[in-house]
Amino acid sequence: MTDKRTDISTLGEFGLIDRISSGFTLRNTSSLRGIGDDAAVIDAGEEVMLLSTDMLVEGIHFDLSYTPLQHLGYKAVAANVSDIAAMNGKPEQIIVAMAVSNRFSVEAIDALFEGIRAACDEYKVDLVGGDTTASPAGLVINVSVLGRTKKGNEVYRSGAKDNDVLCVSGDLGGAYIGLQILEREKEVFLANPNMQPELDKHEYAVGRQLRPKARMDIIYELADLGVKPTSMIDVSDGLASELMHISKNSKAGVRIFEDKIPIDQDAFNTAVEFNLDPFTCALNGGEDYELLFTIHQADVEKLKNHSDIQMIGYIHADPTQNVLITKNGNVVPLKAQGWVHF
Amino acid sequence: MTDKRTDISTLGEFGLIDRISSGFTLRNTSSLRGIGDDAAVIDAGEEVMLLSTDMLVEGIHFDLSYTPLQHLGYKAVAANVSDIAAMNGKPEQIIVAMAVSNRFSVEAIDALFEGIRAACDEYKVDLVGGDTTASPAGLVINVSVLGRTKKGNEVYRSGAKDNDVLCVSGDLGGAYIGLQILEREKEVFLANPNMQPELDKHEYAVGRQLRPKARMDIIYELADLGVKPTSMIDVSDGLASELMHISKNSKAGVRIFEDKIPIDQDAFNTAVEFNLDPFTCALNGGEDYELLFTIHQADVEKLKNHSDIQMIGYIHADPTQNVLITKNGNVVPLKAQGWVHF
Repeated sequence: MTDKRTDISTLGEFGLIDRISSGFTLRNTSSLRGIGDDAAVIDAGEEVMLLSTDMLVEGIHFDLSYTPLQHLGYKAVAANVSDIAAMNGKPEQIIVAMAVSNRFSVEAIDALFEGIRAACDEYKVDLVGGDTTASPAGLVINVSVLGRTKKGNEVYRSGAKDNDVLCVSGDLGGAYIGLQILEREKEVFLANPNMQPELDKHEYAVGRQLRPKARMDIIYELADLGVKPTSMIDVSDGLASELMHISKNSKAGVRIFEDKIPIDQDAFNTAVEFNLDPFTCALNGGEDYELLFTIHQADVEKLKNHSDIQMIGYIHADPTQNVLITKNGNVVPLKAQGWVHF
Repeated sequence: MTDKRTDISTLGEFGLIDRISSGFTLRNTSSLRGIGDDAAVIDAGEEVMLLSTDMLVEGIHFDLSYTPLQHLGYKAVAANVSDIAAMNGKPEQIIVAMAVSNRFSVEAIDALFEGIRAACDEYKVDLVGGDTTASPAGLVINVSVLGRTKKGNEVYRSGAKDNDVLCVSGDLGGAYIGLQILEREKEVFLANPNMQPELDKHEYAVGRQLRPKARMDIIYELADLGVKPTSMIDVSDGLASELMHISKNSKAGVRIFEDKIPIDQDAFNTAVEFNLDPFTCALNGGEDYELLFTIHQADVEKLKNHSDIQMIGYIHADPTQNVLITKNGNVVPLKAQGWVHF
């Protein structure tokens, strides 16, 4: 008997998810949508329930040498809330499972849950359960979220149609730039512990990395304006990767304009200072937790003066043509780099 | 500034949960029940949704030197399904988050999900989403489950009343005894790798540890018999610990009879062979995933000839008197040892 051994890295995260999900089918009529969107969609009479989960692992997703536990707790919730926002739903409950090594004190757990509570307050979510266990080393925190919306009001990645306009909330790249700053300062500190970290002047980008907000405000505003996006996804793996998801699921192509990509001016300057291309950070950095969505042409008027929503391009019929138009007018194929954990 | 540092071990798992939950209140009217039962209860019109989560950590909950990954996947689902059973609900969806180190191959992940699929098939549950990530070391698997039942049909830990009869499904202690066998065989193997493991004659107990079943069959049978338990909990931390939860939540006392505690004969013999007291294993071992529940006196007739349900005692008014009557007629206070991870 020979045991075949294939490295997970040969598949990557999305390949692994495809492989896993191919072995499963949906059997319950209540399972309206399974794997493949920001959240699963479950039938609940006149409403649908939205269910999603997110695991954060020490040493992979966060480094406690520069991540305050309060911020980590807040971020763990915000990342899940963002998944519900991306389905056009309202988050209502979370459950939190965590594994902690004996390196962590009760006070450390208090700090973590202080952040979780701050996020629960901000997003009006209830902590309704969980699981706490020991860990041989490090901290793992898993948040699952339950949201809801009226049946038919949910928005999928698959609804974008020819001529729809691509919109993005807020600005992009900041979280990735913030991460680079934190990593750089950590190295400086390790080399010379007497150096004071220079985080103040990079406050915006660092904040985007450590304590990102979920854009529920945008969901409420769109509802107020009477705009239902035709497709939506949250920007957790980078704009390019999310655009490719919209393209693949909607069986349509995307065309975006480099000069329309929103980047915060401070974050832009910081990126340049660190020899990073701000547009690459925006396209391929992750964890911005902004919303990428498409709207009907007819809704453009309602959003065109919105200060926090930028129209960055449009949808066209050919799903094989996903391109970026550079400032010089060059047409560059989009590549979904996304996050590579494995 | 002095940083106080309190060891988590000074609180224990339940103390930690109490501390965490004291900082949270429920604000959404849809949150019918939060922390403190086998699952959270969420309003969904004519039904309630039941939400629970369970994290399994390598080196804490399982040892891959003797745990086949298929069984681990199955058990991770079964443990969650058991939580829904304990609420008198029907599980319908799960989401699975996992962190895996590069020690694991694609084939290993396939094996894990083979077990998850087997459990999904058995319990008619859909895998509807998840999260996959890298881990610096080891495997962490977190399953969250969504179940449902008609509103009012859910059963809490808090409903036991004076004179209700305490029932338990199946038999107890087997999973703990199985764990002792596996640990013993591992030591023998490490001391002499040429030794063949002697697991065959302990098949029952080993199976209870590696691949426990969730007792959905009991839930369906109780419904068929027209019996709605007045309170219920699953036996994941040991009978004594679960009895104390029923007592605390129902504000009533429990009185059980040692000679009524169901123990499988093979598991009993194995325990004796290993110098373990089978009754201690049943009272304080964990992971049996049987159901402990109380019924009205009026329902005793319907269950008294059920081959897989044992009546082990009854509820009385005084919540401070939780006792075991030994075979010799001695009255011994129950102690909830439960699992001590920290």
